[in-house]
Amino acid sequence: MEYRFSKRIENLKPSAIREIFKYASDPSVVSLSAGNPSPDAFASDKIAEICANLFANRPKDALQYSITEGYTPLREHMLGYMKQKHNIGRAFDDILITSGGQQIMELSAKVLCDEGDYVICENPSFIGSLNSFRSIGVKLKGVDVEPDGISVCGLETALKETPNVRFIYTIPNFQNPSGVTMSLEKRKAVYELAQKYNVMIIEDNPYGDLRYKGDDIPNIKSFDEDGRVIYGGSFSKVIAPGLRVGYTVVPQQVMKKMVVAKQGEDVHTNILAQMICFDFITKYDFEENLANLRRLYSKKAELAERLLDEYVVPCGITYNHISGGLFIWCRLPENVDMLKFCSLAVREHKVAVVPGTAFLADENGSSNCFRINFTTPSDEKLEEGIKRLGAFASGYIK
Amino acid sequence: MEYRFSKRIENLKPSAIREIFKYASDPSVVSLSAGNPSPDAFASDKIAEICANLFANRPKDALQYSITEGYTPLREHMLGYMKQKHNIGRAFDDILITSGGQQIMELSAKVLCDEGDYVICENPSFIGSLNSFRSIGVKLKGVDVEPDGISVCGLETALKETPNVRFIYTIPNFQNPSGVTMSLEKRKAVYELAQKYNVMIIEDNPYGDLRYKGDDIPNIKSFDEDGRVIYGGSFSKVIAPGLRVGYTVVPQQVMKKMVVAKQGEDVHTNILAQMICFDFITKYDFEENLANLRRLYSKKAELAERLLDEYVVPCGITYNHISGGLFIWCRLPENVDMLKFCSLAVREHKVAVVPGTAFLADENGSSNCFRINFTTPSDEKLEEGIKRLGAFASGYIK
Repeated sequence: MEYRFSKRIENLKPSAIREIFKYASDPSVVSLSAGNPSPDAFASDKIAEICANLFANRPKDALQYSITEGYTPLREHMLGYMKQKHNIGRAFDDILITSGGQQIMELSAKVLCDEGDYVICENPSFIGSLNSFRSIGVKLKGVDVEPDGISVCGLETALKETPNVRFIYTIPNFQNPSGVTMSLEKRKAVYELAQKYNVMIIEDNPYGDLRYKGDDIPNIKSFDEDGRVIYGGSFSKVIAPGLRVGYTVVPQQVMKKMVVAKQGEDVHTNILAQMICFDFITKYDFEENLANLRRLYSKKAELAERLLDEYVVPCGITYNHISGGLFIWCRLPENVDMLKFCSLAVREHKVAVVPGTAFLADENGSSNCFRINFTTPSDEKLEEGIKRLGAFASGYIK
Repeated sequence: MEYRFSKRIENLKPSAIREIFKYASDPSVVSLSAGNPSPDAFASDKIAEICANLFANRPKDALQYSITEGYTPLREHMLGYMKQKHNIGRAFDDILITSGGQQIMELSAKVLCDEGDYVICENPSFIGSLNSFRSIGVKLKGVDVEPDGISVCGLETALKETPNVRFIYTIPNFQNPSGVTMSLEKRKAVYELAQKYNVMIIEDNPYGDLRYKGDDIPNIKSFDEDGRVIYGGSFSKVIAPGLRVGYTVVPQQVMKKMVVAKQGEDVHTNILAQMICFDFITKYDFEENLANLRRLYSKKAELAERLLDEYVVPCGITYNHISGGLFIWCRLPENVDMLKFCSLAVREHKVAVVPGTAFLADENGSSNCFRINFTTPSDEKLEEGIKRLGAFASGYIK
């Protein structure tokens, strides 16, 4: 039969990242296009031990239906943890456990936005979230990212000129894909603009614990006295992404609506995975685990920068230095066709990177940037991949 | 701040079941209101063994990001299994693994329906699915359920008179909440009507393996030569619901859109849980496990019927006899106020059942029925609960 799809989905293109992944699955290709944690980052022995204990002591709790809000001990622990460590959470806030950080974005759009409403996002921004908003029928207005975060001037113009803006979507720490971290001044300015124009903020923070240089900057949610900010956290980058467990610190009134929406999506998040996360955080030294991750990744970041400086920068490609997170944002000289460059890189030179256009609010926009990930490949693969990129670029870029 | 919610969510009431659950969590209340498998049904020793093996042999695969479509060995196995056992699946079909059966309903509505489009459902029907459709902004048109399934005459009238119908939602086996199973003739008639009016069918079959009496009836999907039927399956009732793993046999063209939508919801289903399901089905005797479940539940069903006949039927309450599934649908005499009856039952007589109005397509409709679950409580609790219901009803119903 001939199928008729909803307008919101009909307009949604499959992610360009997925197309690149098709090539990246060719074993002869070195993939710098993923966004995965290093497999060396998984404390799988601890998780195995936790699992064995859960099945020995509480098998029925780990397998039965649970409540939509999430595993109560995990929610209570995270409320205290976020308050103490980040001054996040007020009396009007609560915690909802979600099926990965991604679900926070989808639920936020579902409960806050009617079709045709606008979300303001950084430009470029994380394609997964942008597609999640699009799948709800939301329109996107992008605001440029500067070296210290979103353009405040651009944000105010967007707020002034865009109709029916429901929220600002931002990744303030080690933004995906640009790697940029928003300054404290800009965080305050974004919050004040949200107050002035009475919109909400979704603060997506999957990489906040992965800082390799400099000092932590307070999250926007830490100065939220209005109940205006939905904070998105995730265990994907600090425990394991396959478990699909995220958490949002969210005003209770909004959470109630998110719970109703989540009931209709997956009833609740896998309870075994929630119990694993709770035990992982409370029965082992979680801060030490975070420190281990930072050590592992900052070594890889140093290697990536050294290789880029040696093989890629001399060809005229620049990049944003790494202070945290998983990604490096690279810029081609203005005269180079970025899409052609990325396509030739993977097809003829067997190294996969992600074209910058994939991350734009306007899918037809142009970009001369591409994204590299340095956490997924082994050190050997990382070196091989960057060398291939440099060898190709040195011949291709005039 | 004052929140403004989307219209689709603003109109969605929290499920009446949840309100009943508030009382049901009082330990002095006997809950016959859940929809959980018996905790005795979980083969937790096997699942513990599977987990230990997975962490010993493939920890990184079980913890890393995976693909949206689902764990490939599980998808391939289920394609063959459904074809061989149920003649389900044609060359144009594929399998998508979902986060529980619930996600199939939400994804189907998201990719097939624009806001204001109609879905035709059985009346009564599973509230979780109805709310899932409502959360997409879909309108519902209910068609009465008769003892052999949906009214075919009512269905044709609904198809003729309702604008923009995108699909028919049906639970043909041991329907939740009515317990009714659709006859083969009606399954064929429903498929033919879907052809005549060119709409799709979502066939939700979480209880199909739990038949205690009579012979299996072919699923609607088994005669789908058009690619018109989305078949919904789940491991919640046959392995464990806490794992949140479902699967849909779905035309590839529709699946592609569902994959894009699912990427935006949770990226992929918990991979550890998918690997557990695969090993559970392929490394142990899955058919023997199903036979064990049927033995366990048919005993409980017999007990429930015996108790109802002794304590509840003499008060003038009738019920649909149990041939499978988890639920018993009870009918009060016409002159009894059902909502008041259910409310007094839980508040004053400490036995929780679910009011029939919770399951109506029209939330303001009336019903003199209520739903009982017989699988979750222990035999002792089941006996105590039905006795309490009878003691209350014998005094209350004149």
